[in-house]
Amino acid sequence: MENLTKEKLDYLKSNLATLKKYYHALGIMSFDFETCAPRDAREEEAETMSFFSNEAFKIATSDEMKKATVYLYEHRDELEPLDKVLVNYLYDDYLKTKNVTPETQLRWAQIGNKAYIDWHEAKEKSDFSVFEKSLGDVLQISKEDVSLRENALPDFYDNLLDDCEKGVLTKDLDAFFDELKAGLIDLIGRIKRSKHIIRTDFLTRKVPIYKQEQFSRYLLELNGYDFSKGYITTTEHPFTSPVAENDARVTTHYYEDMFLSNVYSVIHEGGHAIFMQNEPAEDHAHFINDHVSNGMHESVSRFYESVIGRSEEYIRLIYPKLMELFGDELGDVSERELYEAVNVVTPSLIRTEADEVTYGLHVVIRYEMEKLICSGKIKISDVPKKWNELYTEYLGVTPDSDKTGVLQDVHWSGGFGYFPSYALGNAYNAMYVKEMSKDIDFKGAIARGDFALINGWMKEHVFKKANVLTPKKWLADLTGRSLTAKDFLEYLNEKYTNIYEL
Amino acid sequence: MENLTKEKLDYLKSNLATLKKYYHALGIMSFDFETCAPRDAREEEAETMSFFSNEAFKIATSDEMKKATVYLYEHRDELEPLDKVLVNYLYDDYLKTKNVTPETQLRWAQIGNKAYIDWHEAKEKSDFSVFEKSLGDVLQISKEDVSLRENALPDFYDNLLDDCEKGVLTKDLDAFFDELKAGLIDLIGRIKRSKHIIRTDFLTRKVPIYKQEQFSRYLLELNGYDFSKGYITTTEHPFTSPVAENDARVTTHYYEDMFLSNVYSVIHEGGHAIFMQNEPAEDHAHFINDHVSNGMHESVSRFYESVIGRSEEYIRLIYPKLMELFGDELGDVSERELYEAVNVVTPSLIRTEADEVTYGLHVVIRYEMEKLICSGKIKISDVPKKWNELYTEYLGVTPDSDKTGVLQDVHWSGGFGYFPSYALGNAYNAMYVKEMSKDIDFKGAIARGDFALINGWMKEHVFKKANVLTPKKWLADLTGRSLTAKDFLEYLNEKYTNIYEL
Repeated sequence: MENLTKEKLDYLKSNLATLKKYYHALGIMSFDFETCAPRDAREEEAETMSFFSNEAFKIATSDEMKKATVYLYEHRDELEPLDKVLVNYLYDDYLKTKNVTPETQLRWAQIGNKAYIDWHEAKEKSDFSVFEKSLGDVLQISKEDVSLRENALPDFYDNLLDDCEKGVLTKDLDAFFDELKAGLIDLIGRIKRSKHIIRTDFLTRKVPIYKQEQFSRYLLELNGYDFSKGYITTTEHPFTSPVAENDARVTTHYYEDMFLSNVYSVIHEGGHAIFMQNEPAEDHAHFINDHVSNGMHESVSRFYESVIGRSEEYIRLIYPKLMELFGDELGDVSERELYEAVNVVTPSLIRTEADEVTYGLHVVIRYEMEKLICSGKIKISDVPKKWNELYTEYLGVTPDSDKTGVLQDVHWSGGFGYFPSYALGNAYNAMYVKEMSKDIDFKGAIARGDFALINGWMKEHVFKKANVLTPKKWLADLTGRSLTAKDFLEYLNEKYTNIYEL
Repeated sequence: MENLTKEKLDYLKSNLATLKKYYHALGIMSFDFETCAPRDAREEEAETMSFFSNEAFKIATSDEMKKATVYLYEHRDELEPLDKVLVNYLYDDYLKTKNVTPETQLRWAQIGNKAYIDWHEAKEKSDFSVFEKSLGDVLQISKEDVSLRENALPDFYDNLLDDCEKGVLTKDLDAFFDELKAGLIDLIGRIKRSKHIIRTDFLTRKVPIYKQEQFSRYLLELNGYDFSKGYITTTEHPFTSPVAENDARVTTHYYEDMFLSNVYSVIHEGGHAIFMQNEPAEDHAHFINDHVSNGMHESVSRFYESVIGRSEEYIRLIYPKLMELFGDELGDVSERELYEAVNVVTPSLIRTEADEVTYGLHVVIRYEMEKLICSGKIKISDVPKKWNELYTEYLGVTPDSDKTGVLQDVHWSGGFGYFPSYALGNAYNAMYVKEMSKDIDFKGAIARGDFALINGWMKEHVFKKANVLTPKKWLADLTGRSLTAKDFLEYLNEKYTNIYEL
């Protein structure tokens, strides 16, 4: 490495070390904002976060940083592999942000924070009109953002998709969702015609929240989540927060009369957190942690949530603890009844509580909504109406309120493009579970509760390269194939043929 | 006001508005650090806090700020009253910190954070040696700090006392504690000779934590704490956190077999928080909030905790809710039995769980320890031994471990001088409750649960001027008298004569 290259790299890294402190502080504040912060304090807290994200932006986009980035990008062939990866990421960000002034970034951050507050209030009041203005603003700043990029893709929405899942654009997703939709509609049709009755009466029984809390800890520890590097608390819309290298936090939401809601929130978010807790230390040291795409991340969270969490082996594994804690409430429920109930297929309104089969259609609806919104084919004020129409068309159910309709998810308060990741996640994990099953006795490991074996495989094959590869390359390396909905549909067909005696 | 004065004042305030964001962020992080942060993340979080407190220090002590402060102090007679108060505070800080470089401040902050981590670990392991080095370092930086001040008082320990309670120094405290100690020892002697038996068997019964949690919310709301501007969670050593103008958070610690511990932690911390929630808005606007002295603050927290919380009227008020929640565990306990039990006098090891009578002696011990440590009359390594000797001498009980001895309180990880505030708090509130009782039917208000009346009086007479007056002036304005232990001793004598039939 030339001396000047080393000098620039050292400068860059010392600045990134400072920035890491800003992101750490912002991570803590953002976690606080969605968990602890009292109602009347949220506005000021959002202002404070905007201020610090703006200070971080100033450091990240200072002239010196820009110069160092461009210089290092031009001399990237002199760098070690992980430094080169870092510089590629920074150069990409540089092209995206070089025309964005700190004043513009501050305005965007403020609009984003206000959008979250408005969404929260709108959901509480079940009134889309409270959120409408902010949603329009989010779209507007997103357009402004893309228009200022030096490396923008021609189609507006493709840029947002690319931000979430590098290189997976409308043309890929259109093909993927067409295949998925057809397969799901066919399977749902066959399930509807099944004569098999699944018992669900106990799913709405009241289970005290303090018992559910104990079960949450049990599930997280069982799956391999490390509480010495983690924390769990409650929030409106569950999320996982990568606060720091040794700090991956999980959140959930308890409903007394819907105990499964927490069970699968916790396993899902715990999946994200296990991924975070197992990112290579050298990725942190090279400032390239958190470059896992959303689809990769969701492939892991939904792997734990569904492939494992809704398997017959897992239900058998956790059944004794469930009976120990919820025996008073669920004592008359058998293992098999529980297994069938966690997999009952019921077209419903809420994505996060959907079964594995209809889940994909919730995502299809959001993808189609985003395309309509981002192309300007529908007005913001028509969003709830269109949402309800699509639910009626694809799932045969119609939201009776904005809260159970368009306001159920937090995502749009932060922008568009995330939702496809959930469906991609299912497709990815169905593909790599096939590989896993060649190497280890996957089902046997679940049955024995041997998560060290499963997580060990995941660490080696899934977590290890996620920060350095694009999703397409990562998937190809993992499976030797490219994106398809086929494995996921096969998995569903096999599982539900058994459950519904198709 | 001259033009230049206005210009300097505007400059100062715009800087203070920026600093407020740093303190807000630090408030959130510090709350997080003591509540959510997982074990393995604490060290990095402490580093991040040190970094931002150092950034704040740089802003607060920039040359421009120093110049503006000195200029405004010299022209203070041109200022509006609250601006003048602000400038006086800033000038005082200026004299304290003008010789402290940002590098020095960063080192201090890092030592302080490490001391907290070491104390935490030492307490967990019940091993003073884990904390010993840090405690010495805390003393050392405290001496360094005082030696750099331009307005230092001649005696080292007086400076620390003055930081906590402006103008209340060793000579005041020696006289005060002598009077208090004599009165308490006399009263404890009479109580020891009493034949009256107080039933306490139920105090160690197991009460599930989820029930205790419900009771905490009930108590806080009853006393007038506003959850739309607040939050409650758990920590190792309960504290209250003034995160922002609309954000005063309470923490507690639950023990299954010691339900009263939480009850009085919550009422105590809730008292601090009610004070914070009622500081005048104009004090926030003038950046002089949080200038309440520790003794003033403790006078309020212990007013709610003891004068109200341990009164017969309050026990009668909360008894029905307590029975509703803890009926299974405490169904055989009468109102009077509960009242006597929350006031049982038992010399014991833990300050925060002490009764009102022996409590003062816990403070006396700490005051004497601090004088010994700060004067160098004992070595740091001898601190646990001396601590245990004083407990044996004054309370007749000897700690059987460092955890229940010298490591029980967090305070020394942050420096010395705080403890006397607790005893001052009792003395202050005994004095102002006399005034209150002239204006309103205080006991009747407790009996009716009319906290609006009580808190209204407190707001007008106690909270209102606390940010602008020194403790001595504030007390004189409130009561027309100066500090004495007499009222507090009278209050105890009257109360315990009744309970113990003396």
